[in-house]
Amino acid sequence: MNPRRTRAVTLFESLQKSICSRLEELDGETTFHEDSWTLASGGGGRTRVIQNGGVFEKGGVNTSAVHGTLTGVLAERLKTRPQSFFATGISLVLHPKSPMIPTFHANFRYLELEDGDSWFGGGADLTPYYLVEEDAVHFHLTWKESCDRHDPSLYPKFKSACDRYFFLPHRQEARGIGGIFFDYIKGDFDRQFPLIENLGHSILESYEPIVKRRKKDRWEDREREWQLVRRGRYVEFNLLYDRGTLFGIETQGRAESILMSLPPLVRWEYDVHPEPGSREHDLVEVLRSPRDWVRP
Amino acid sequence: MNPRRTRAVTLFESLQKSICSRLEELDGETTFHEDSWTLASGGGGRTRVIQNGGVFEKGGVNTSAVHGTLTGVLAERLKTRPQSFFATGISLVLHPKSPMIPTFHANFRYLELEDGDSWFGGGADLTPYYLVEEDAVHFHLTWKESCDRHDPSLYPKFKSACDRYFFLPHRQEARGIGGIFFDYIKGDFDRQFPLIENLGHSILESYEPIVKRRKKDRWEDREREWQLVRRGRYVEFNLLYDRGTLFGIETQGRAESILMSLPPLVRWEYDVHPEPGSREHDLVEVLRSPRDWVRP
Repeated sequence: MNPRRTRAVTLFESLQKSICSRLEELDGETTFHEDSWTLASGGGGRTRVIQNGGVFEKGGVNTSAVHGTLTGVLAERLKTRPQSFFATGISLVLHPKSPMIPTFHANFRYLELEDGDSWFGGGADLTPYYLVEEDAVHFHLTWKESCDRHDPSLYPKFKSACDRYFFLPHRQEARGIGGIFFDYIKGDFDRQFPLIENLGHSILESYEPIVKRRKKDRWEDREREWQLVRRGRYVEFNLLYDRGTLFGIETQGRAESILMSLPPLVRWEYDVHPEPGSREHDLVEVLRSPRDWVRP
Repeated sequence: MNPRRTRAVTLFESLQKSICSRLEELDGETTFHEDSWTLASGGGGRTRVIQNGGVFEKGGVNTSAVHGTLTGVLAERLKTRPQSFFATGISLVLHPKSPMIPTFHANFRYLELEDGDSWFGGGADLTPYYLVEEDAVHFHLTWKESCDRHDPSLYPKFKSACDRYFFLPHRQEARGIGGIFFDYIKGDFDRQFPLIENLGHSILESYEPIVKRRKKDRWEDREREWQLVRRGRYVEFNLLYDRGTLFGIETQGRAESILMSLPPLVRWEYDVHPEPGSREHDLVEVLRSPRDWVRP
Protein backbone atom coordinates (compact mmCIF):
# COMPACT_ATOMS: atom_id res chain seq x y z
CA MET A 1 0.00 0.00 0.00
CA ASN A 2 1.23 3.48 -0.81
CA PRO A 3 1.36 6.01 2.09
CA ARG A 4 -1.86 7.74 1.00
CA ARG A 5 -3.80 4.50 1.15
CA THR A 6 -2.30 3.72 4.54
CA ARG A 7 -3.28 7.10 5.97
CA ALA A 8 -6.84 6.78 4.73
CA VAL A 9 -7.23 3.20 6.01
CA THR A 10 -5.73 4.14 9.39
CA LEU A 11 -8.11 7.07 9.80
CA PHE A 12 -11.19 5.02 8.96
CA GLU A 13 -10.19 2.14 11.24
CA SER A 14 -9.44 4.43 14.16
CA LEU A 15 -12.78 6.22 13.66
CA GLN A 16 -14.57 2.87 13.63
CA LYS A 17 -12.97 1.95 16.94
CA SER A 18 -13.72 5.21 18.76
CA ILE A 19 -17.22 5.59 17.32
CA CYS A 20 -18.26 2.03 18.23
CA SER A 21 -17.03 2.41 21.77
CA ARG A 22 -18.95 5.67 22.26
CA LEU A 23 -22.05 4.20 20.67
CA GLU A 24 -21.93 1.23 23.03
CA GLU A 25 -21.80 3.62 25.95
CA LEU A 26 -24.74 5.55 24.48
CA ASP A 27 -26.73 2.36 23.95
CA GLY A 28 -26.07 1.11 27.45
CA GLU A 29 -27.47 -2.39 26.88
CA THR A 30 -25.57 -4.19 24.18
CA THR A 31 -22.31 -4.20 22.22
CA PHE A 32 -21.19 -4.49 18.61
CA HIS A 33 -20.65 -7.87 17.03
CA GLU A 34 -17.70 -7.93 14.62
CA ASP A 35 -17.27 -9.90 11.39
CA SER A 36 -14.15 -9.68 9.27
CA TRP A 37 -14.40 -10.61 5.63
CA THR A 38 -12.13 -10.80 2.62
CA LEU A 39 -12.82 -10.45 -1.09
CA ALA A 40 -11.55 -12.91 -3.69
CA SER A 41 -10.29 -9.95 -5.74
CA GLY A 42 -8.26 -8.60 -2.79
CA GLY A 43 -8.74 -6.75 0.45
CA GLY A 44 -11.63 -7.01 2.83
CA GLY A 45 -13.42 -5.32 5.64
CA ARG A 46 -14.63 -5.27 9.17
CA THR A 47 -18.39 -5.16 9.74
CA ARG A 48 -19.58 -4.20 13.22
CA VAL A 49 -23.25 -4.65 13.89
CA ILE A 50 -25.37 -3.75 16.89
CA GLN A 51 -28.86 -5.25 17.24
CA ASN A 52 -31.72 -5.07 19.73
CA GLY A 53 -29.93 -2.65 22.02
CA GLY A 54 -31.33 -0.21 24.54
CA VAL A 55 -31.25 2.63 22.02
CA PHE A 56 -30.29 1.05 18.72
CA GLU A 57 -32.65 -1.48 17.20
CA LYS A 58 -30.08 -2.09 14.46
CA GLY A 59 -26.94 -0.38 13.33
CA GLY A 60 -23.64 -0.98 11.67
CA VAL A 61 -20.26 0.68 11.50
CA ASN A 62 -18.24 -0.83 8.66
CA THR A 63 -14.80 -0.25 7.29
CA SER A 64 -13.36 -1.78 4.16
CA ALA A 65 -10.30 -1.56 1.98
CA VAL A 66 -10.71 -3.43 -1.28
CA HIS A 67 -9.06 -3.87 -4.66
CA GLY A 68 -10.99 -4.74 -7.75
CA THR A 69 -11.50 -4.16 -11.42
CA LEU A 70 -13.93 -1.66 -12.85
CA THR A 71 -15.90 -3.47 -15.55
CA GLY A 72 -17.77 -1.81 -18.40
CA VAL A 73 -20.85 -0.42 -16.66
CA LEU A 74 -19.03 0.67 -13.49
CA ALA A 75 -16.17 2.28 -15.40
CA GLU A 76 -18.78 4.11 -17.47
CA ARG A 77 -20.56 5.29 -14.33
CA LEU A 78 -17.27 6.67 -12.98
CA LYS A 79 -16.63 8.19 -16.42
CA THR A 80 -13.34 6.35 -16.85
CA ARG A 81 -11.83 3.42 -18.76
CA PRO A 82 -11.87 -0.19 -17.45
CA GLN A 83 -9.01 -0.55 -14.96
CA SER A 84 -8.19 -1.71 -11.46
CA PHE A 85 -9.18 0.35 -8.41
CA PHE A 86 -8.54 0.63 -4.70
CA ALA A 87 -11.30 1.84 -2.37
CA THR A 88 -11.39 2.32 1.37
CA GLY A 89 -14.07 3.84 3.53
CA ILE A 90 -16.12 3.94 6.65
CA SER A 91 -19.87 3.60 6.55
CA LEU A 92 -22.27 3.98 9.43
CA VAL A 93 -26.04 3.55 9.69
CA LEU A 94 -27.98 3.67 12.95
CA HIS A 95 -31.65 2.78 13.28
CA PRO A 96 -32.83 3.61 16.80
CA LYS A 97 -35.76 1.73 18.25
CA SER A 98 -37.53 4.92 19.34
CA PRO A 99 -39.36 6.74 16.54
CA MET A 100 -38.45 9.96 18.33
CA ILE A 101 -34.74 9.47 17.56
CA PRO A 102 -33.73 10.02 13.93
CA THR A 103 -31.95 7.45 11.80
CA PHE A 104 -28.40 8.52 11.00
CA HIS A 105 -26.10 7.71 8.12
CA ALA A 106 -22.52 8.76 7.43
CA ASN A 107 -19.99 7.50 4.94
CA PHE A 108 -16.53 8.69 3.95
CA ARG A 109 -14.33 7.05 1.36
CA TYR A 110 -11.12 7.32 -0.63
CA LEU A 111 -10.74 5.93 -4.15
CA GLU A 112 -7.69 5.42 -6.32
CA LEU A 113 -7.59 4.27 -9.91
CA GLU A 114 -4.77 2.47 -11.67
CA ASP A 115 -4.27 5.50 -13.94
CA GLY A 116 -3.34 7.64 -10.90
CA ASP A 117 -6.64 9.47 -10.49
CA SER A 118 -7.87 9.58 -6.88
CA TRP A 119 -10.57 11.32 -4.89
CA PHE A 120 -12.57 11.54 -1.67
CA GLY A 121 -16.30 11.22 -1.35
CA GLY A 122 -18.79 10.97 1.44
CA GLY A 123 -21.63 12.49 3.34
CA ALA A 124 -23.80 12.43 6.40
CA ASP A 125 -27.55 12.79 6.60
CA LEU A 126 -30.30 12.64 9.19
CA THR A 127 -33.68 10.93 8.78
CA PRO A 128 -36.11 11.95 11.51
CA TYR A 129 -39.56 10.42 11.88
CA TYR A 130 -40.71 13.45 13.86
CA LEU A 131 -39.14 16.80 13.15
CA VAL A 132 -37.47 18.73 15.98
CA GLU A 133 -36.04 22.01 14.71
CA GLU A 134 -33.41 22.21 17.43
CA ASP A 135 -32.03 18.84 16.31
CA ALA A 136 -32.03 19.75 12.63
CA VAL A 137 -30.17 22.98 13.38
CA HIS A 138 -27.62 21.21 15.60
CA PHE A 139 -26.98 18.59 12.92
CA HIS A 140 -26.46 21.07 10.10
CA LEU A 141 -24.47 23.49 12.25
CA THR A 142 -22.04 20.77 13.25
CA TRP A 143 -21.38 19.86 9.64
CA LYS A 144 -21.17 23.50 8.58
CA GLU A 145 -18.54 24.27 11.21
CA SER A 146 -16.61 21.14 10.34
CA CYS A 147 -16.55 22.08 6.63
CA ASP A 148 -15.80 25.74 7.42
CA ARG A 149 -12.59 24.80 9.24
CA HIS A 150 -11.31 23.58 5.89
CA ASP A 151 -12.95 26.00 3.48
CA PRO A 152 -16.01 28.20 4.13
CA SER A 153 -17.22 27.75 0.57
CA LEU A 154 -17.85 24.03 1.03
CA TYR A 155 -20.91 23.69 3.28
CA PRO A 156 -23.43 25.46 0.99
CA LYS A 157 -22.32 23.28 -1.93
CA PHE A 158 -22.29 20.06 0.11
CA LYS A 159 -25.68 20.90 1.65
CA SER A 160 -27.44 21.34 -1.68
CA ALA A 161 -25.67 18.32 -3.16
CA CYS A 162 -27.10 16.36 -0.21
CA ASP A 163 -30.63 17.59 -0.85
CA ARG A 164 -30.28 16.61 -4.50
CA TYR A 165 -28.74 13.21 -3.77
CA PHE A 166 -31.02 11.90 -1.01
CA PHE A 167 -34.15 12.47 -3.04
CA LEU A 168 -36.73 9.89 -4.09
CA PRO A 169 -38.15 11.05 -7.45
CA HIS A 170 -40.97 8.49 -7.35
CA ARG A 171 -42.11 9.92 -4.01
CA GLN A 172 -41.12 13.53 -4.75
CA GLU A 173 -39.62 13.58 -1.26
CA ALA A 174 -36.21 13.83 0.33
CA ARG A 175 -35.11 10.84 2.40
CA GLY A 176 -34.65 13.06 5.43
CA ILE A 177 -33.56 16.56 6.36
CA GLY A 178 -30.21 16.21 4.58
CA GLY A 179 -26.78 17.15 5.79
CA ILE A 180 -23.76 17.08 3.52
CA PHE A 181 -22.82 15.10 0.43
CA PHE A 182 -19.81 15.32 -1.87
CA ASP A 183 -17.89 13.23 -4.36
CA TYR A 184 -14.85 13.55 -6.59
CA ILE A 185 -12.94 15.81 -4.20
CA LYS A 186 -9.69 15.67 -6.12
CA GLY A 187 -6.40 17.53 -5.96
CA ASP A 188 -3.41 17.21 -3.68
CA PHE A 189 -3.95 14.42 -1.09
CA ASP A 190 -2.17 16.31 1.70
CA ARG A 191 -4.36 19.34 1.17
CA GLN A 192 -7.66 17.38 1.04
CA PHE A 193 -7.04 14.72 3.68
CA PRO A 194 -7.52 17.13 6.64
CA LEU A 195 -11.08 17.82 5.39
CA ILE A 196 -11.88 14.12 5.70
CA GLU A 197 -10.24 14.06 9.15
CA ASN A 198 -12.39 17.03 10.26
CA LEU A 199 -15.55 15.44 8.96
CA GLY A 200 -14.70 12.03 10.40
CA HIS A 201 -14.35 13.56 13.85
CA SER A 202 -17.72 15.30 13.50
CA ILE A 203 -19.66 12.08 12.96
CA LEU A 204 -20.67 11.54 16.56
CA GLU A 205 -20.61 15.23 17.43
CA SER A 206 -23.44 15.74 14.94
CA TYR A 207 -25.64 12.92 16.28
CA GLU A 208 -24.88 12.05 19.90
CA PRO A 209 -26.53 15.14 21.48
CA ILE A 210 -29.70 14.46 19.47
CA VAL A 211 -29.87 10.88 20.73
CA LYS A 212 -29.32 12.04 24.32
CA ARG A 213 -32.13 14.58 24.08
CA ARG A 214 -34.67 12.35 22.29
CA LYS A 215 -34.02 9.21 24.36
CA LYS A 216 -36.34 10.57 27.01
CA ASP A 217 -39.24 11.31 24.63
CA ARG A 218 -42.22 9.01 25.03
CA TRP A 219 -43.87 7.24 22.15
CA GLU A 220 -46.67 4.77 21.54
CA ASP A 221 -48.04 2.56 18.77
CA ARG A 222 -48.96 5.44 16.49
CA GLU A 223 -45.41 6.83 16.45
CA ARG A 224 -43.94 3.35 15.99
CA GLU A 225 -46.24 2.60 13.05
CA TRP A 226 -45.26 5.86 11.37
CA GLN A 227 -41.59 5.01 11.86
CA LEU A 228 -42.08 1.58 10.24
CA VAL A 229 -43.82 3.13 7.23
CA ARG A 230 -41.15 5.83 6.83
CA ARG A 231 -38.43 3.19 7.09
CA GLY A 232 -39.92 1.79 3.89
CA ARG A 233 -38.80 4.96 2.12
CA TYR A 234 -35.31 4.39 3.49
CA VAL A 235 -35.26 0.95 1.91
CA GLU A 236 -36.64 2.31 -1.35
CA PHE A 237 -33.89 4.91 -1.52
CA ASN A 238 -31.09 2.50 -0.70
CA LEU A 239 -32.12 -0.23 -3.11
CA LEU A 240 -33.37 1.95 -5.98
CA TYR A 241 -30.93 4.86 -5.96
CA ASP A 242 -28.04 4.72 -3.49
CA ARG A 243 -24.81 4.63 -5.49
CA GLY A 244 -22.84 3.01 -2.67
CA THR A 245 -25.34 0.19 -2.31
CA LEU A 246 -25.59 -0.41 -6.05
CA PHE A 247 -21.80 -0.21 -6.44
CA GLY A 248 -21.40 -2.78 -3.67
CA ILE A 249 -23.99 -5.13 -5.17
CA GLU A 250 -22.57 -4.82 -8.69
CA THR A 251 -18.97 -5.38 -7.57
CA GLN A 252 -20.19 -8.48 -5.70
CA GLY A 253 -19.31 -7.08 -2.31
CA ARG A 254 -20.39 -8.89 0.85
CA ALA A 255 -24.20 -8.65 0.79
CA GLU A 256 -24.69 -8.69 4.56
CA SER A 257 -22.26 -5.80 5.01
CA ILE A 258 -23.80 -3.72 2.24
CA LEU A 259 -27.37 -4.37 3.33
CA MET A 260 -26.77 -3.83 7.03
CA SER A 261 -28.01 -0.31 6.18
CA LEU A 262 -31.56 -1.63 5.86
CA PRO A 263 -33.86 -1.02 8.84
CA PRO A 264 -34.70 -3.93 11.15
CA LEU A 265 -38.47 -3.83 10.75
CA VAL A 266 -40.37 -2.10 7.95
CA ARG A 267 -43.96 -1.71 6.92
CA TRP A 268 -45.37 -1.06 3.47
CA GLU A 269 -48.97 -0.06 3.77
CA TYR A 270 -50.92 1.06 0.72
CA ASP A 271 -51.20 4.80 0.12
CA VAL A 272 -50.58 6.26 3.58
CA HIS A 273 -51.33 9.97 3.93
CA PRO A 274 -50.92 11.69 7.29
CA GLU A 275 -53.64 14.10 8.34
CA PRO A 276 -52.98 17.79 7.70
CA GLY A 277 -51.94 19.47 10.92
CA SER A 278 -50.42 16.28 12.39
CA ARG A 279 -46.72 16.00 13.29
CA GLU A 280 -46.45 13.26 10.65
CA HIS A 281 -47.78 15.69 8.04
CA ASP A 282 -45.33 18.40 9.18
CA LEU A 283 -42.44 16.04 8.51
CA VAL A 284 -43.62 15.24 4.99
CA GLU A 285 -43.97 18.97 4.24
CA VAL A 286 -40.31 19.52 5.11
CA LEU A 287 -39.25 16.50 3.06
CA ARG A 288 -41.05 18.00 0.07
CA SER A 289 -39.35 21.41 0.39
CA PRO A 290 -35.91 21.16 1.98
CA ARG A 291 -35.04 24.06 4.27
CA ASP A 292 -31.87 25.95 5.05
CA TRP A 293 -31.29 25.04 8.69
CA VAL A 294 -28.34 27.36 9.22
CA ARG A 295 -27.50 30.66 7.62
CA PRO A 296 -25.00 29.92 4.83
CA MET B 1 -57.45 2.18 -29.80
CA ASN B 2 -56.86 -0.42 -32.49
CA PRO B 3 -58.72 -3.75 -32.14
CA ARG B 4 -55.63 -5.56 -30.80
CA ARG B 5 -55.26 -3.08 -27.95
CA THR B 6 -58.96 -3.35 -27.20
CA ARG B 7 -58.84 -7.15 -27.03
CA ALA B 8 -55.85 -7.10 -24.69
CA VAL B 9 -57.34 -4.43 -22.39
CA THR B 10 -60.68 -6.25 -22.30
CA LEU B 11 -59.02 -9.54 -21.35
CA PHE B 12 -56.98 -7.98 -18.54
CA GLU B 13 -59.93 -6.05 -17.12
CA SER B 14 -62.21 -9.06 -17.16
CA LEU B 15 -59.51 -11.17 -15.46
CA GLN B 16 -59.11 -8.49 -12.79
CA LYS B 17 -62.82 -8.60 -12.10
CA SER B 18 -63.17 -12.36 -11.85
CA ILE B 19 -59.92 -12.87 -9.94
CA CYS B 20 -60.73 -10.23 -7.32
CA SER B 21 -64.15 -11.65 -6.72
CA ARG B 22 -62.78 -15.18 -6.21
CA LEU B 23 -59.99 -13.86 -3.97
CA GLU B 24 -62.52 -12.04 -1.79
CA GLU B 25 -64.41 -15.29 -1.38
CA LEU B 26 -61.16 -17.08 -0.50
CA ASP B 27 -60.20 -14.39 2.01
CA GLY B 28 -63.59 -14.46 3.68
CA GLU B 29 -63.03 -11.36 5.82
CA THR B 30 -62.37 -8.32 3.69
CA THR B 31 -62.73 -6.92 0.18
CA PHE B 32 -60.61 -5.06 -2.36
CA HIS B 33 -60.35 -1.29 -2.28
CA GLU B 34 -60.21 0.27 -5.75
CA ASP B 35 -58.30 3.35 -6.92
CA SER B 36 -58.40 4.58 -10.50
CA TRP B 37 -55.58 6.75 -11.71
CA THR B 38 -54.54 8.53 -14.89
CA LEU B 39 -51.16 9.47 -16.28
CA ALA B 40 -50.33 12.93 -17.65
CA SER B 41 -48.88 11.25 -20.78
CA GLY B 42 -52.10 9.34 -21.41
CA GLY B 43 -54.05 6.37 -20.16
CA GLY B 44 -54.27 5.10 -16.63
CA GLY B 45 -55.13 2.14 -14.51
CA ARG B 46 -57.19 0.52 -11.84
CA THR B 47 -55.41 -0.54 -8.65
CA ARG B 48 -57.26 -2.97 -6.39
CA VAL B 49 -55.72 -3.55 -3.01
CA ILE B 50 -56.66 -5.93 -0.20
CA GLN B 51 -55.18 -5.40 3.28
CA ASN B 52 -55.43 -7.08 6.68
CA GLY B 53 -57.80 -9.77 5.47
CA GLY B 54 -58.49 -13.20 6.89
CA VAL B 55 -55.99 -14.81 4.51
CA PHE B 56 -54.27 -11.94 2.75
CA GLU B 57 -52.19 -9.54 4.81
CA LYS B 58 -51.66 -7.45 1.68
CA GLY B 59 -52.26 -7.94 -1.99
CA GLY B 60 -53.01 -6.11 -5.17
CA VAL B 61 -54.53 -6.85 -8.53
CA ASN B 62 -53.79 -4.03 -10.94
CA THR B 63 -54.61 -3.33 -14.54
CA SER B 64 -53.28 -0.48 -16.61
CA ALA B 65 -53.32 0.78 -20.18
CA VAL B 66 -50.88 3.62 -20.71
CA HIS B 67 -49.27 5.63 -23.49
CA GLY B 68 -45.86 7.18 -23.17
CA THR B 69 -42.56 7.93 -24.80
CA LEU B 70 -39.52 5.70 -24.53
CA THR B 71 -36.61 7.96 -23.62
CA GLY B 72 -32.93 7.15 -24.14
CA VAL B 73 -32.25 4.62 -21.39
CA LEU B 74 -35.58 2.83 -21.70
CA ALA B 75 -35.42 2.66 -25.49
CA GLU B 76 -31.92 1.26 -25.15
CA ARG B 77 -33.12 -1.34 -22.66
CA LEU B 78 -35.84 -2.42 -25.12
CA LYS B 79 -33.21 -2.38 -27.88
CA THR B 80 -35.16 0.09 -29.97
CA ARG B 81 -35.12 3.78 -30.96
CA PRO B 82 -36.83 6.55 -28.93
CA GLN B 83 -40.54 6.50 -29.83
CA SER B 84 -43.99 6.39 -28.31
CA PHE B 85 -45.41 3.19 -26.86
CA PHE B 86 -48.65 1.65 -25.65
CA ALA B 87 -48.63 -0.86 -22.80
CA THR B 88 -51.42 -2.73 -21.08
CA GLY B 89 -51.26 -5.46 -18.49
CA ILE B 90 -52.50 -7.15 -15.38
CA SER B 91 -50.28 -7.56 -12.37
CA LEU B 92 -51.07 -9.47 -9.22
CA VAL B 93 -49.15 -9.94 -5.97
CA LEU B 94 -50.56 -11.68 -2.90
CA HIS B 95 -48.84 -11.72 0.49
CA PRO B 96 -50.76 -14.04 2.84
CA LYS B 97 -50.57 -13.50 6.57
CA SER B 98 -49.75 -17.14 7.27
CA PRO B 99 -46.12 -18.09 6.66
CA MET B 100 -47.39 -21.50 5.59
CA ILE B 101 -49.07 -20.01 2.49
CA PRO B 102 -46.69 -18.93 -0.30
CA THR B 103 -46.58 -15.45 -1.77
CA PHE B 104 -47.81 -15.40 -5.34
CA HIS B 105 -47.05 -13.12 -8.25
CA ALA B 106 -48.39 -13.09 -11.80
CA ASN B 107 -48.17 -10.50 -14.53
CA PHE B 108 -49.19 -10.49 -18.18
CA ARG B 109 -48.75 -7.60 -20.57
CA TYR B 110 -49.02 -6.44 -24.16
CA LEU B 111 -46.75 -3.77 -25.64
CA GLU B 112 -46.94 -1.87 -28.91
CA LEU B 113 -44.38 0.53 -30.30
CA GLU B 114 -45.00 3.39 -32.70
CA ASP B 115 -42.90 1.61 -35.35
CA GLY B 116 -45.42 -1.28 -35.42
CA ASP B 117 -43.44 -3.75 -33.31
CA SER B 118 -45.55 -5.46 -30.63
CA TRP B 119 -45.19 -8.34 -28.19
CA PHE B 120 -46.51 -10.14 -25.14
CA GLY B 121 -44.63 -10.74 -21.92
CA GLY B 122 -45.41 -12.07 -18.49
CA GLY B 123 -44.97 -14.74 -15.94
CA ALA B 124 -46.11 -16.27 -12.69
CA ASP B 125 -44.00 -17.42 -9.78
CA LEU B 126 -44.46 -18.82 -6.30
CA THR B 127 -42.50 -17.80 -3.20
CA PRO B 128 -43.03 -20.25 -0.35
CA TYR B 129 -41.60 -19.70 3.14
CA TYR B 130 -41.88 -23.41 3.87
CA LEU B 131 -41.59 -25.85 1.01
CA VAL B 132 -44.40 -28.33 0.36
CA GLU B 133 -43.58 -30.51 -2.62
CA GLU B 134 -47.21 -31.23 -3.44
CA ASP B 135 -47.82 -27.46 -3.80
CA ALA B 136 -44.74 -26.90 -5.95
CA VAL B 137 -45.78 -29.73 -8.27
CA HIS B 138 -49.36 -28.45 -8.52
CA PHE B 139 -48.15 -24.95 -9.35
CA HIS B 140 -45.75 -26.01 -12.07
CA LEU B 141 -48.11 -28.62 -13.50
CA THR B 142 -50.87 -26.03 -13.88
CA TRP B 143 -48.60 -23.70 -15.83
CA LYS B 144 -47.16 -26.56 -17.89
CA GLU B 145 -50.63 -27.73 -18.95
CA SER B 146 -51.68 -24.19 -19.71
CA CYS B 147 -48.61 -23.62 -21.93
CA ASP B 148 -48.96 -27.07 -23.52
CA ARG B 149 -52.45 -26.27 -24.80
CA HIS B 150 -50.81 -23.63 -27.00
CA ASP B 151 -47.47 -25.24 -27.80
CA PRO B 152 -45.75 -28.09 -25.89
CA SER B 153 -42.33 -26.59 -26.51
CA LEU B 154 -43.08 -23.51 -24.38
CA TYR B 155 -43.11 -24.68 -20.73
CA PRO B 156 -39.50 -25.93 -20.54
CA LYS B 157 -38.27 -22.63 -22.02
CA PHE B 158 -40.53 -20.49 -19.84
CA LYS B 159 -39.59 -22.50 -16.74
CA SER B 160 -35.86 -22.01 -17.15
CA ALA B 161 -36.31 -18.35 -18.10
CA CYS B 162 -38.20 -17.97 -14.81
CA ASP B 163 -35.39 -19.58 -12.81
CA ARG B 164 -32.92 -17.23 -14.48
CA TYR B 165 -35.06 -14.12 -14.07
CA PHE B 166 -36.16 -14.45 -10.43
CA PHE B 167 -32.62 -14.81 -9.17
CA LEU B 168 -30.78 -12.59 -6.67
CA PRO B 169 -27.08 -12.66 -7.64
CA HIS B 170 -26.02 -10.96 -4.38
CA ARG B 171 -27.70 -13.76 -2.40
CA GLN B 172 -26.99 -16.52 -4.91
CA GLU B 173 -30.59 -17.59 -4.42
CA ALA B 174 -33.79 -17.74 -6.42
CA ARG B 175 -36.67 -15.59 -5.14
CA GLY B 176 -38.87 -18.65 -4.86
CA ILE B 177 -39.55 -21.94 -6.60
CA GLY B 178 -40.17 -20.29 -9.97
CA GLY B 179 -42.95 -20.91 -12.44
CA ILE B 180 -42.97 -19.37 -15.90
CA PHE B 181 -41.47 -16.23 -17.39
CA PHE B 182 -41.37 -14.95 -20.97
CA ASP B 183 -40.94 -11.74 -22.90
CA TYR B 184 -40.92 -10.56 -26.51
CA ILE B 185 -43.47 -13.13 -27.68
CA LYS B 186 -43.90 -11.62 -31.12
CA GLY B 187 -45.56 -12.69 -34.34
CA ASP B 188 -49.17 -12.67 -35.46
CA PHE B 189 -51.44 -11.23 -32.72
CA ASP B 190 -54.30 -13.63 -33.47
CA ARG B 191 -51.98 -16.61 -33.13
CA GLN B 192 -50.36 -15.46 -29.87
CA PHE B 193 -53.32 -13.92 -28.06
CA PRO B 194 -54.89 -17.31 -27.15
CA LEU B 195 -51.70 -18.18 -25.23
CA ILE B 196 -52.21 -15.12 -23.03
CA GLU B 197 -55.88 -16.04 -22.62
CA ASN B 198 -54.92 -19.57 -21.52
CA LEU B 199 -52.35 -18.29 -19.06
CA GLY B 200 -54.65 -15.59 -17.72
CA HIS B 201 -57.27 -18.20 -16.92
CA SER B 202 -54.67 -20.32 -15.09
CA ILE B 203 -53.75 -17.60 -12.59
CA LEU B 204 -56.10 -18.68 -9.84
CA GLU B 205 -56.09 -22.33 -10.88
CA SER B 206 -52.37 -22.42 -10.05
CA TYR B 207 -52.71 -20.81 -6.60
CA GLU B 208 -56.18 -21.24 -5.09
CA PRO B 209 -55.83 -24.98 -4.21
CA ILE B 210 -52.54 -24.24 -2.43
CA VAL B 211 -54.14 -21.51 -0.32
CA LYS B 212 -57.05 -23.79 0.56
CA ARG B 213 -54.71 -26.58 1.68
CA ARG B 214 -52.25 -24.38 3.66
CA LYS B 215 -54.90 -22.21 5.34
CA LYS B 216 -55.35 -24.92 7.94
CA ASP B 217 -51.64 -25.27 8.78
CA ARG B 218 -50.65 -23.95 12.20
CA TRP B 219 -47.78 -21.58 12.75
CA GLU B 220 -46.17 -19.68 15.61
CA ASP B 221 -43.63 -16.89 16.15
CA ARG B 222 -40.71 -18.81 14.68
CA GLU B 223 -42.48 -19.33 11.35
CA ARG B 224 -43.69 -15.74 11.28
CA GLU B 225 -40.17 -14.40 11.92
CA TRP B 226 -38.78 -16.53 9.11
CA GLN B 227 -41.49 -15.20 6.79
CA LEU B 228 -40.59 -11.58 7.67
CA VAL B 229 -36.90 -12.19 6.98
CA ARG B 230 -37.61 -13.96 3.68
CA ARG B 231 -39.93 -11.12 2.66
CA GLY B 232 -36.82 -8.94 2.80
CA ARG B 233 -35.46 -10.91 -0.15
CA TYR B 234 -38.68 -10.22 -2.01
CA VAL B 235 -38.16 -6.49 -1.51
CA GLU B 236 -34.51 -6.76 -2.53
CA PHE B 237 -35.47 -8.50 -5.77
CA ASN B 238 -38.24 -6.08 -6.66
CA LEU B 239 -36.27 -2.90 -5.99
CA LEU B 240 -32.86 -4.03 -7.24
CA TYR B 241 -33.72 -6.18 -10.24
CA ASP B 242 -37.36 -6.41 -11.26
CA ARG B 243 -37.71 -4.93 -14.75
CA GLY B 244 -41.38 -4.14 -14.31
CA THR B 245 -40.78 -2.22 -11.10
CA LEU B 246 -37.80 -0.31 -12.49
CA PHE B 247 -39.67 0.42 -15.74
CA GLY B 248 -42.60 1.78 -13.73
CA ILE B 249 -40.38 3.93 -11.53
CA GLU B 250 -38.38 5.28 -14.48
CA THR B 251 -41.47 6.10 -16.53
CA GLN B 252 -42.84 7.94 -13.50
CA GLY B 253 -45.75 5.56 -13.09
CA ARG B 254 -47.96 5.76 -10.01
CA ALA B 255 -45.64 4.82 -7.13
CA GLU B 256 -48.34 3.34 -4.89
CA SER B 257 -49.54 1.05 -7.68
CA ILE B 258 -46.05 -0.09 -8.62
CA LEU B 259 -44.95 -0.64 -5.03
CA MET B 260 -48.11 -2.41 -3.90
CA SER B 261 -46.01 -5.51 -4.67
CA LEU B 262 -43.94 -4.92 -1.52
CA PRO B 263 -44.82 -7.06 1.51
CA PRO B 264 -46.73 -5.47 4.40
CA LEU B 265 -44.18 -6.17 7.14
CA VAL B 266 -40.54 -7.05 6.61
CA ARG B 267 -37.54 -7.74 8.79
CA TRP B 268 -33.86 -7.30 7.96
CA GLU B 269 -31.81 -9.04 10.57
CA TYR B 270 -28.06 -9.27 10.18
CA ASP B 271 -26.67 -12.49 8.68
CA VAL B 272 -29.46 -14.99 9.33
CA HIS B 273 -28.55 -18.64 8.69
CA PRO B 274 -31.10 -21.38 9.36
CA GLU B 275 -29.85 -24.50 11.10
CA PRO B 276 -28.99 -27.47 8.87
CA GLY B 277 -31.80 -29.99 8.99
CA SER B 278 -34.48 -27.37 9.72
CA ARG B 279 -37.40 -26.71 7.37
CA GLU B 280 -36.04 -23.19 6.89
CA HIS B 281 -32.74 -24.66 5.74
CA ASP B 282 -34.52 -27.04 3.35
CA LEU B 283 -36.15 -24.08 1.65
CA VAL B 284 -32.85 -22.26 1.14
CA GLU B 285 -31.32 -25.41 -0.35
CA VAL B 286 -34.03 -25.51 -3.02
CA LEU B 287 -33.64 -21.78 -3.72
CA ARG B 288 -29.94 -22.39 -4.33
CA SER B 289 -30.50 -25.24 -6.80
CA PRO B 290 -33.82 -24.93 -8.63
CA ARG B 291 -35.55 -28.24 -9.30
CA ASP B 292 -37.65 -29.60 -12.13
CA TRP B 293 -41.02 -30.03 -10.47
CA VAL B 294 -42.72 -31.74 -13.39
CA ARG B 295 -41.31 -33.96 -16.09
CA PRO B 296 -40.69 -31.73 -19.11
